[in-house]
Amino acid sequence: MIQKEDISLWFQSLQDTICASLEKADNTGKFAEDKWQREEGGGGRTRILQNGNIIEKGGVLYSAVHGPVPAFLIGENKQIKSTDTFYATGVSIVIHPHSPLVPIIHMNVRYFEMSNGIWWFGGGIDLTPHYINEEDARFFHTTLKTACDKYDPAYYEKFKKWADDYFFIPHRKETRGIGGIFFDKLSGTEPYSKQKIFEFVKEIGSAFAPIYTTLMRKNFQEKFTPENKQWQLLRRGRYVEFNLVYDKGTKFGLETNGRTESILMSLPANASWLYDYKPHPDSKEAQTLSFLKKGIQWAN
Amino acid sequence: MIQKEDISLWFQSLQDTICASLEKADNTGKFAEDKWQREEGGGGRTRILQNGNIIEKGGVLYSAVHGPVPAFLIGENKQIKSTDTFYATGVSIVIHPHSPLVPIIHMNVRYFEMSNGIWWFGGGIDLTPHYINEEDARFFHTTLKTACDKYDPAYYEKFKKWADDYFFIPHRKETRGIGGIFFDKLSGTEPYSKQKIFEFVKEIGSAFAPIYTTLMRKNFQEKFTPENKQWQLLRRGRYVEFNLVYDKGTKFGLETNGRTESILMSLPANASWLYDYKPHPDSKEAQTLSFLKKGIQWAN
Repeated sequence: MIQKEDISLWFQSLQDTICASLEKADNTGKFAEDKWQREEGGGGRTRILQNGNIIEKGGVLYSAVHGPVPAFLIGENKQIKSTDTFYATGVSIVIHPHSPLVPIIHMNVRYFEMSNGIWWFGGGIDLTPHYINEEDARFFHTTLKTACDKYDPAYYEKFKKWADDYFFIPHRKETRGIGGIFFDKLSGTEPYSKQKIFEFVKEIGSAFAPIYTTLMRKNFQEKFTPENKQWQLLRRGRYVEFNLVYDKGTKFGLETNGRTESILMSLPANASWLYDYKPHPDSKEAQTLSFLKKGIQWAN
Repeated sequence: MIQKEDISLWFQSLQDTICASLEKADNTGKFAEDKWQREEGGGGRTRILQNGNIIEKGGVLYSAVHGPVPAFLIGENKQIKSTDTFYATGVSIVIHPHSPLVPIIHMNVRYFEMSNGIWWFGGGIDLTPHYINEEDARFFHTTLKTACDKYDPAYYEKFKKWADDYFFIPHRKETRGIGGIFFDKLSGTEPYSKQKIFEFVKEIGSAFAPIYTTLMRKNFQEKFTPENKQWQLLRRGRYVEFNLVYDKGTKFGLETNGRTESILMSLPANASWLYDYKPHPDSKEAQTLSFLKKGIQWAN
């Protein structure tokens, strides 16, 4: 049977593989590592690449933490006692490229278990192009659908809708980007389902590097204007709004005294806010805005 | 007896006076006005100045809104019935200057009443210098203390502590700036106390323009380096973190479907995040960080 240590070891190796792939695609950037320990138990390896050739600021984080279950979990579930302990491990990634023609990407894969036997996997991957390119959007979603379909024909549709609903900015009435997939508390009856779900999570984790290195290489050499750059900074402003106002991982991390610099690695090197900025109706910027809604079927 | 209309009219005139003073001090910038209406009742005048001579991005907002009391208020107070209505009016200001040597400032004065007779005033003013200058900090706090002392010898100490506690970023273990004063639900027995509290609120509102135009003019022509500018962008990043994660007015506005562009006028034109940036121990930046804590007595 799979043990939590097997899962956390696999996440460590995923972090290694992804960092190596991103460094290779970037060509000059190198990840710097900070190892940290959590007072209550466990720790992590925060790896950050700043000022690369293609990547302006990106983080690939691994952590495995454990200890007494947090108080708020005890309140919300009667199966949890205050003497229970938890173990949580995962990999989180956010990459902000220099070029407005290369998309921002985010991925997270995670495993959580408690001493009372409750366990689940969660995760997601979503793409935030500054300029939405329909070909790239179809490639991204079709790749995710193919990965999902190997495990359950219902996964993609369900998890795509979950991402549409999760990566949404209510006060802007916009999705963060073109979505992707999102899933949480994926569990089942042991021993078969745990193995199967872990295989699915591995599939998603392993899909990240091929997807993003393809998108990195595709457009990073294309020329762009100062107007394209300003638009990128405004879209990054929206990214900051989503992460600080709505993202559950960020809120949970900040509220539970997590490592701030690791949690906020998701924020871009630069972002901008202009009052009530509206792009010209016939522009590429306006076209991108028109795609920032739920329910678009991008997968083939 | 003072009516809500008298208060809202005075807030309108405060907005006019402050905009005129800021335009005069800025010398080239002009406020552009957006009038807006709220579906459930009331509306406002949002005035924004962008790309002035001294001010890069600033907003001076007036609003007066009314309607059925919000559901969350009914839950928290048994004196409030679902048939009650509310009226809220106020002025909110945030100014981001171009120069890192000129401080960011924020002010809010507000009045709230319900049809059941409950009413209160609230407000605050706080300063966020990118580089903390002890002379300016003493000037700022001493001016506020003088204004408070005219009304109640206990106000300054109480409201200064309230600001230290409110304008604090727990995940950074830093105050937002050098604080100022903050007060909420200031009320009393009519008719005397309402008049007296209103006079106090007027005193604070009227103190804003003389304070900030003095600070605008003092250092805007001083030369600064690219390193000073980068530091300013990082400090603005903290300002964004406070406003999006903790500020109650921002959270309330976004959650209750307020006018997003008015609420988020507080965000700077540009902000920056670098991973785990630490200034040199002997630098002016490190000195500023050492002042970002609660309980410093700046007033003479």
